[in-house]
Amino acid sequence: MRITRIIEKPLRLESNISNAFVNFAHHTVSLIAIVTDKIVAGKPLTGISFNSIGRYAQSGILKDRMIPRLLEEDPENLLLEDGTLSPEKVSLVALRNEKPGGHGDRAHALAGLELAVWDLNAKLNDEPACQTIARHFGREAAVTEVDVYAAGGYYYPGEDLTALKAELSRYAAQGFTRFKMKIGGASLETDRQRIEAALQVAGGGSRLAVDANGRFDQDTALQYARALEPYGLMWFEEAGDPLDYELNCALAQAYNGPLATGENLFSAMDVKNLILFGGMRPGHDVFQMDSGLSYGVTEYARMLKEMESRGFSRKQAYPHGGQLLALHVVAGLGLGGCEVYPSIFQPLGGFGDDVKVVDGKVRVGDAPGFGLETKSALIREFAELVS
Amino acid sequence: MRITRIIEKPLRLESNISNAFVNFAHHTVSLIAIVTDKIVAGKPLTGISFNSIGRYAQSGILKDRMIPRLLEEDPENLLLEDGTLSPEKVSLVALRNEKPGGHGDRAHALAGLELAVWDLNAKLNDEPACQTIARHFGREAAVTEVDVYAAGGYYYPGEDLTALKAELSRYAAQGFTRFKMKIGGASLETDRQRIEAALQVAGGGSRLAVDANGRFDQDTALQYARALEPYGLMWFEEAGDPLDYELNCALAQAYNGPLATGENLFSAMDVKNLILFGGMRPGHDVFQMDSGLSYGVTEYARMLKEMESRGFSRKQAYPHGGQLLALHVVAGLGLGGCEVYPSIFQPLGGFGDDVKVVDGKVRVGDAPGFGLETKSALIREFAELVS
Repeated sequence: MRITRIIEKPLRLESNISNAFVNFAHHTVSLIAIVTDKIVAGKPLTGISFNSIGRYAQSGILKDRMIPRLLEEDPENLLLEDGTLSPEKVSLVALRNEKPGGHGDRAHALAGLELAVWDLNAKLNDEPACQTIARHFGREAAVTEVDVYAAGGYYYPGEDLTALKAELSRYAAQGFTRFKMKIGGASLETDRQRIEAALQVAGGGSRLAVDANGRFDQDTALQYARALEPYGLMWFEEAGDPLDYELNCALAQAYNGPLATGENLFSAMDVKNLILFGGMRPGHDVFQMDSGLSYGVTEYARMLKEMESRGFSRKQAYPHGGQLLALHVVAGLGLGGCEVYPSIFQPLGGFGDDVKVVDGKVRVGDAPGFGLETKSALIREFAELVS
Repeated sequence: MRITRIIEKPLRLESNISNAFVNFAHHTVSLIAIVTDKIVAGKPLTGISFNSIGRYAQSGILKDRMIPRLLEEDPENLLLEDGTLSPEKVSLVALRNEKPGGHGDRAHALAGLELAVWDLNAKLNDEPACQTIARHFGREAAVTEVDVYAAGGYYYPGEDLTALKAELSRYAAQGFTRFKMKIGGASLETDRQRIEAALQVAGGGSRLAVDANGRFDQDTALQYARALEPYGLMWFEEAGDPLDYELNCALAQAYNGPLATGENLFSAMDVKNLILFGGMRPGHDVFQMDSGLSYGVTEYARMLKEMESRGFSRKQAYPHGGQLLALHVVAGLGLGGCEVYPSIFQPLGGFGDDVKVVDGKVRVGDAPGFGLETKSALIREFAELVS
């Protein structure tokens, strides 16, 4: 089997954003297809994916650097012994002559490519990607059901608390039992009122997380920590800059509830530093790294190794992302659970068209690969891509 | 004054690499020109720059994200009170809607843009960029002479030590008094022989640095440290992964000579972490961050603040890069000195055509801006760009 084409197309989510308070008006994601010369059911076997949600398309890095390196490589050098593509070898070749450090856009670019390899291999095996991932990393089987939570809880004009409660109530009606809301976009007093309103819907602190999106300095983070502590929240997410390990460590010393961070760390070395210097607590705090932004599952497995070799459990990992790719990674690697952004970031966000959230859990589908074909609005975009 | 066009062109250095043992065969750099509606000497005032040397061109990030943001902005919002372009405001607008963390290719992209602003402002003032930089950051004046050292000391086939000695002797004949050589590409015993050969040319350990390019694990780094210590070297550079603060800290505890690192850290937050967790010693170790890869001079000034607020001196800063942009930043901000790669990375590397190294120092030229116009091979590339 050899790769014959690698296609990338930036997809603008512009018209699909349903909530104007998240400024993703010019947000883009790279759709990626790896086409091979292997014919399955009369068509060239093709792996498809995208580079998660929340950063940007990576057309330049993919077309100028990574795709040419892969197409110029001897196809034999990209294969595993069983004849499927090696995610590790594809990653090494795509990063050839790249210097160490600087884990940003490059990590998002390779992530999309590497995930397409998993989709391709799973389709060759005629199984869901979570099974291919589980077997590759020596796990008995993928789990079939994944804990999810609904991320949202936006600010509304006039700070009318009924709008916030209505939003979370919609998620509850969809089957979610745990919720995450924004904080830090208003005064502490206003945020406190919003949290108390949200708790009325969530039904208890352990069912509600708050997310500051990295905007607090250390003093503000500590001030919020003192105010949040009595609520016994599910977690307090990204209080400060994602690389500010000093702040995170001070917060972990001051705040007894779980902290969550990591969606803006894109390499195993950054995760190692978060663990060594950021004060994260085994069995307590939450790691949100997203393989779809971080060089793919190969590097994500290295992140888990950094965690587990230092006494942390993979159940503490709740990847950022809220899409099918992350769902399969969580199921394949046996992680704690998965974020979902109900209704926004379409057509990429969420799971298959007919996937239901039941009692805060989602069953992983049986479709081969990541099952992106079960999202009709998304698969139309891919159909154009490979046509 | 308003920006009318921002032009980017990737330049391949392929045919210009004179040393085949550095694998920069597909290396690219973004040439950037910011064109305004201000007419000076009958022509539109234009700032030019490039994103240093050693990583890659950033055509995608510039064209898809940063350039459109700048051209869509109200021109008034990009100006300082004196009517020149504000490097800080240009940076903020170019990064609009970018999330925190992930300081990689994006940092290289903005660096090229931001440096073009300095070139433009200096040309408007009819002065060298180092003067504009010095004044902007409240310094009395730029220094006129900068300490430089020659980086090279490559591996040669057959490990013939005469080739290494001949290379360093050429640099000495060009006026260099301090040198840097590669280590880690051979056994410790071979490297020891190479260092001893190089010392014969350098004339003493304080005139010779060694660079492992980040390839050692902690055990190997410590093994080298023990072997290197007796030579009393100028510094031991990038022993391990640039983000491995644990390794750097262990090395600082074990090795009494100066360590050098930072060319692969691209944000002030990463520098803060290096200082807090990497064991760097005030008045002793060397910081090599390169404004041309790290969001520009605006972010570089924040890095200096992280250093100086923790007892480090800006004289400990020796930026990576070895080109005119870095020379002016060093002169404008009063840093310790500057790297030079004699003869390679052309047409970008090195200083003006007629700049001479005298007794290990370089005089900063009088040409307006960064003086890229004084490098004839380079300015031909820019002439094509803006034509």
